[in-house]
Amino acid sequence: MNTALLDQLREIVGAAGVIAGSEVRSRYPGFFMSEIGADAIVRPASVEQVSQVLALCNAAGQPVVVQGGMSGWVRATQTRAGEIALSLERMNAIEEVDLANRTATVQAGVVLETFQNHIEGFGLSFPLDLGGRGSCQLGGNAATNAGGMRVIRYGMMREQVLGLEAVLADGRIVSSMNRMIKNNTGYDLKQLFIGSEGTLGVITRLVLRLRERPTSSNTALVCADSFDQISRLLRHMDGALGGQLSAFELIDHNFYRTNTGAGRHAAPLPADKPFYAIIEALGADQERDTQLFEQALGQGLEQDLCSDAIIARSERERQGIWAIREDLEHLVRDFQPFYAFDVSLAVGHMEAYMREVTTRLRARWPQGAIAFLGHVGDGNLHIAIGAGGENDRHAVETCVYEPLRAISGSVSAEHGIGLEKAAWFPISRNEVERNLMQSIKLTLDPNGILNPGKIFAAETAGSP
Amino acid sequence: MNTALLDQLREIVGAAGVIAGSEVRSRYPGFFMSEIGADAIVRPASVEQVSQVLALCNAAGQPVVVQGGMSGWVRATQTRAGEIALSLERMNAIEEVDLANRTATVQAGVVLETFQNHIEGFGLSFPLDLGGRGSCQLGGNAATNAGGMRVIRYGMMREQVLGLEAVLADGRIVSSMNRMIKNNTGYDLKQLFIGSEGTLGVITRLVLRLRERPTSSNTALVCADSFDQISRLLRHMDGALGGQLSAFELIDHNFYRTNTGAGRHAAPLPADKPFYAIIEALGADQERDTQLFEQALGQGLEQDLCSDAIIARSERERQGIWAIREDLEHLVRDFQPFYAFDVSLAVGHMEAYMREVTTRLRARWPQGAIAFLGHVGDGNLHIAIGAGGENDRHAVETCVYEPLRAISGSVSAEHGIGLEKAAWFPISRNEVERNLMQSIKLTLDPNGILNPGKIFAAETAGSP
Repeated sequence: MNTALLDQLREIVGAAGVIAGSEVRSRYPGFFMSEIGADAIVRPASVEQVSQVLALCNAAGQPVVVQGGMSGWVRATQTRAGEIALSLERMNAIEEVDLANRTATVQAGVVLETFQNHIEGFGLSFPLDLGGRGSCQLGGNAATNAGGMRVIRYGMMREQVLGLEAVLADGRIVSSMNRMIKNNTGYDLKQLFIGSEGTLGVITRLVLRLRERPTSSNTALVCADSFDQISRLLRHMDGALGGQLSAFELIDHNFYRTNTGAGRHAAPLPADKPFYAIIEALGADQERDTQLFEQALGQGLEQDLCSDAIIARSERERQGIWAIREDLEHLVRDFQPFYAFDVSLAVGHMEAYMREVTTRLRARWPQGAIAFLGHVGDGNLHIAIGAGGENDRHAVETCVYEPLRAISGSVSAEHGIGLEKAAWFPISRNEVERNLMQSIKLTLDPNGILNPGKIFAAETAGSP
Repeated sequence: MNTALLDQLREIVGAAGVIAGSEVRSRYPGFFMSEIGADAIVRPASVEQVSQVLALCNAAGQPVVVQGGMSGWVRATQTRAGEIALSLERMNAIEEVDLANRTATVQAGVVLETFQNHIEGFGLSFPLDLGGRGSCQLGGNAATNAGGMRVIRYGMMREQVLGLEAVLADGRIVSSMNRMIKNNTGYDLKQLFIGSEGTLGVITRLVLRLRERPTSSNTALVCADSFDQISRLLRHMDGALGGQLSAFELIDHNFYRTNTGAGRHAAPLPADKPFYAIIEALGADQERDTQLFEQALGQGLEQDLCSDAIIARSERERQGIWAIREDLEHLVRDFQPFYAFDVSLAVGHMEAYMREVTTRLRARWPQGAIAFLGHVGDGNLHIAIGAGGENDRHAVETCVYEPLRAISGSVSAEHGIGLEKAAWFPISRNEVERNLMQSIKLTLDPNGILNPGKIFAAETAGSP
């Protein structure tokens, strides 16, 4: 990368705003990436600086990769020599919380957990929640349309964003800072940037919707003899809880057994069933809500929608149940090499799909380990696989992704495409869709400087 | 319009599929429009026919205006000589209801109420609801991103659409029939078509999200001495009802008095307060939910968040309360000439805004009538005005729209822009936003055949 450009970037963001050389290599590169390959990390402190940086890079044909908290799973922030990384870590102000309107205005570099805690201080809540909360940034949550545990109740990040400010490749600042739930004036431009993984613009500010903070919670672990029970229990609980259902997390036998084995987490229910689920309700009146929860779960047992159930009677018990779901350490250790997937499909296809993937895997690796868990209410399954060697990624991916083709499933429910899934992208989006996406990309970023090679890398015919 | 083209259209959709001449003039033209001005109404029976019609029109530079149930308020479906109207009324099949996945696949011409009733038969519910339910079509609901009464709980039409099929101006069929709540594979193309008022493509099919059907309901009418009380009561009830709040409708003094005057609807509360609100909760356990509702409302009274409240004790009482909100006949009769508006703004600005509009109106017409009602939880106010003469529309609009400029309000919360508000569009979207929208329009419809002149009509400097 030419040093003249680097000097110009330093003029825009200040000397301390540009990290170059070996210091770049010392920073955390994110999952599945050995190091940050970019020539420099540019850290603007304002939207005007972002605008100047992009205008300069656009004129120079200089590729720019925007980076958030580096907690993504698909290498959407991976960089190589010749590219510069753009970090919004200095733009981390929570600018305003409007209590009457229940909105907050934030800069893109605010860390999710910092924001959640700040909002709780006002008696409100920001419901987006995921494992990376301690490092992921709100701008990245928007750029990747983050999901997580409570989507069934509150929706994904897309549904939390009321307005945003983004900078286009040519430096134009699009200020679309709407603060209302309803605003039908022309095209809803924010939707273009949400979930586009930094390929259409750089999100710099957000107006986020806040919710009332729930003051009651009820959590149960259930087990079932069939997936059909789980699927019907989901519908029953959603109806019977009258708006309180906030999580419905499937755990399969292999996952449950892995995490509740000797010396690991306590097993609140015996490990002999094929399916488990964590059910959580959030409400406003603990005593009344607990009665309702018990009643709903009791009906579920009576109607044979589950085989057994245990309700957490303390915060400690609640955390014990969730720990079985959230702890991935044992899995990563036991499943070697460890492969993780994130797919979605219609609930009615899930049982056959899980069987099909397992059959394909075992046909190749009879001793292969596989476990399923997921946000079943959202059609979202996560799959952990320990099979083959380090170089069998493609063969393992084939077992997981090929069966999605016939059932219109998605190769990425919430993680995005990045580089990791670019080769499989055509399974989930047809040629007309991909062409239309490319047209949008060309309209907004004609020189192709924004996150080049991501999402669309595999635009070759058929599967990889 | 040349007859050769008409003959070609007949070849595509069949002779009965094309309505021309005086029969066009005899069909219902929609609100605020004296007649359908188009040369012909083309009624395809399949997406392939839609594709062929558009490809033909695109090649010929023939403008096409897609029409739904003609219940819009902003003349987005208005046509004139030289244009053809495209009606999807023959594409009205409910193709599939997937109970486990809680989705339905429908053609665009299905009438909302028909669909609602069909879904209720499965013990599920489609929560979008609005006054035009008996005639509006689901394709139109999507094309205009319809809102309505229950947005605070379930979101607008945008949040109900999981996937769609649309035909581009050049006839390409974009099949993006996703059925999952989560699908982060590339850009979310459906967002382009939702709310774009037929200017970017013709929506032909939809995958819609269904919800469990609520089995309890509680409804109250409250009155308050200040808007601040109403605003705080909204937050209190939303929190205290733990997920059940489904409607929070503001009614001002003038509206309440107009609809509860002599010989009109019964007044459950005296007509001497400045503000009223209808509060509705939907849940799953009538006895428990009624206790919760009473408790929450009791706390509201204790904490002085309202001055008085009455809870409906029967379905008849419930309907009596809602009739005060939904009946517009008396207003249309008393307010002459009748002007109706639909704006949105941050809740914290609402009281000052209502005062400002009233002041501006009375400065010009001291006897002018004005009433406010609205979905206050969504930042959405509807305004009814009876002032001036038939030719004073612009002056009346100025009173309503100008005060939105300084507070980043929207000239259209849920009705859209169409032709009716095109002149005021720049108040709510800045030049960069409008230019970006035009770029998208040019990318998807380079010949500008789709609904020309709508949304963007007023691309002149400043206000009209």
